[in-house]
Amino acid sequence: MPITVVGSIAYDTVKTPFGERERMLGGAAVHFALAASFFDEVRVVGPVGEDFGEEQLALLRSRGIDVADVERVAGGRTFFWHGEYGWDLNSRETLDTQLGVFEGFAPKLSSRSRSSDVLFLANIQPDLQREVRAQMADARFVALDSMNLWIDIARDSLVQTIAQVDCVILNDAELRQLTGKPNLVAAAREVLSWGAPGSHEDGRGRGPSVIVAKQGEYGAALVTREGFFALPAYPLETVIDPTGAGDTFAGGFVGYIAAHPEEERSEELLRRAMAHATVLASYNVEEFGTDRVARLTGKEIVARIGELHAMTQFSGAPLALRA
Amino acid sequence: MPITVVGSIAYDTVKTPFGERERMLGGAAVHFALAASFFDEVRVVGPVGEDFGEEQLALLRSRGIDVADVERVAGGRTFFWHGEYGWDLNSRETLDTQLGVFEGFAPKLSSRSRSSDVLFLANIQPDLQREVRAQMADARFVALDSMNLWIDIARDSLVQTIAQVDCVILNDAELRQLTGKPNLVAAAREVLSWGAPGSHEDGRGRGPSVIVAKQGEYGAALVTREGFFALPAYPLETVIDPTGAGDTFAGGFVGYIAAHPEEERSEELLRRAMAHATVLASYNVEEFGTDRVARLTGKEIVARIGELHAMTQFSGAPLALRA
Repeated sequence: MPITVVGSIAYDTVKTPFGERERMLGGAAVHFALAASFFDEVRVVGPVGEDFGEEQLALLRSRGIDVADVERVAGGRTFFWHGEYGWDLNSRETLDTQLGVFEGFAPKLSSRSRSSDVLFLANIQPDLQREVRAQMADARFVALDSMNLWIDIARDSLVQTIAQVDCVILNDAELRQLTGKPNLVAAAREVLSWGAPGSHEDGRGRGPSVIVAKQGEYGAALVTREGFFALPAYPLETVIDPTGAGDTFAGGFVGYIAAHPEEERSEELLRRAMAHATVLASYNVEEFGTDRVARLTGKEIVARIGELHAMTQFSGAPLALRA
Repeated sequence: MPITVVGSIAYDTVKTPFGERERMLGGAAVHFALAASFFDEVRVVGPVGEDFGEEQLALLRSRGIDVADVERVAGGRTFFWHGEYGWDLNSRETLDTQLGVFEGFAPKLSSRSRSSDVLFLANIQPDLQREVRAQMADARFVALDSMNLWIDIARDSLVQTIAQVDCVILNDAELRQLTGKPNLVAAAREVLSWGAPGSHEDGRGRGPSVIVAKQGEYGAALVTREGFFALPAYPLETVIDPTGAGDTFAGGFVGYIAAHPEEERSEELLRRAMAHATVLASYNVEEFGTDRVARLTGKEIVARIGELHAMTQFSGAPLALRA
């Protein structure tokens, strides 16, 4: 099923212990789209400025991504982020943020973008997320991301938006902050309770039925009403640049689900989506910006899925307990 | 194979968001022994004071634990720890530590304790760990734990001790601190390099071949020369008291290995040991101190192993990648 993603398209200047790069292609919608493009057609909705390069659009097009709704704002500047990571890559400091054209962003979806069956609301102001959601009332699967800023200053709006989506993908610390519950399982169950099972006209629940907690280097957990699933991150001896890992993860997850409409979000499907998300994110952090995912191949994804599978299995052999 | 554990036997006063308990039975050797007792015979070596209760010894004996080398020091006081956990249980503050009889502890192993095939050196001063190691030169499997204090003030000694054991079980933050490597895989490989493969007379390497990184609520990872394995923690909606979780984990891990000598530390065996360690630790944190593990049954362990297995599997079904 085609996927529409609404979110930032950016230039990132990033310093990590392994080097520094200036004005790389970045942004949540970009990282998401590149990852999801391995699975299904992706339509990107977001603004760029006059400084945005044709070369960057060409990269997206080369992956089959529809950029017709990438709006070039006359006289505007592309969203710019400048950040630096600490020695263990788990902390980062924002040195500069220039919203540019993102400041007055009012998402305009073409009829083509509106017709997608799947929608990913990347991290933007939750009122805007809800406006987009309203434009795609018939979407079969809607997921969102958010961030601590919106929990701080627009929590009520975010909670309203969450009640209108199927899937919430957040960092585990954000889930705790959002719910005020320090325990991850309790926090996820709280968010699940914001939906009303079975109230939707098609018999499915309204509101979130799939919660994904991103846990950075520790991996990710999936909580549904039916169960719990967790995967470690794919182990890498060298991580070069974590920027965009979360959006790449979301792209792998949502993309995989979009490509398997016949499986109707079964637990099995969601788990395989988690594995593909984990693998996509692991490639993303191996190089700066979008460099690695831009030249990634399906064969490499399949190979790493096999490795991840081998790293997470144990056999339930007979036990010899004394008591 | 019988297991000897050398470490602290303590009284713990613990405050968590769920309540406070005074002078509960605790200590690394106690938590380890209770967990390992489900798998094999355990012999505890450690000092207690005149204040130590017969009732506590009876609890250990009821699990078949050999307490003949629990040394009651005349005129001494049992090691005492008083700590308080923060709201999310991930941080804790030590309010009081009274070493008591632990201060002058010089481990004395009876010939019976020395004859064990498996040795666990719980977190004590690394010179002492090496002295005990020397008394059990023929042990078939030796594991150790340590802590940030010894990395701070006795790192050289700890590195020497690690070179003489088979298995290192540390928190992931301790592994990073010990090696100065922020990346977990790189840190674990560094510790593996402290052993010399194949130099031992029986053809096995000397020094560590098994590294376990405990990651608290995120689970644990296993790094060997052959591969990588990781398991999430068993998800609990309510964690009451994390005290002793790491030692309980170690008891489950080392105990399971001890009970399967015929498997000679195969990757498969180590993975099943990780699963049992994870399950034992999950029961430990469900109630204060040793309360839950003291009345745990083999049947409950087996049931949760099955649940953990179900929560960590995904099928490698055929993929539909676009590129």
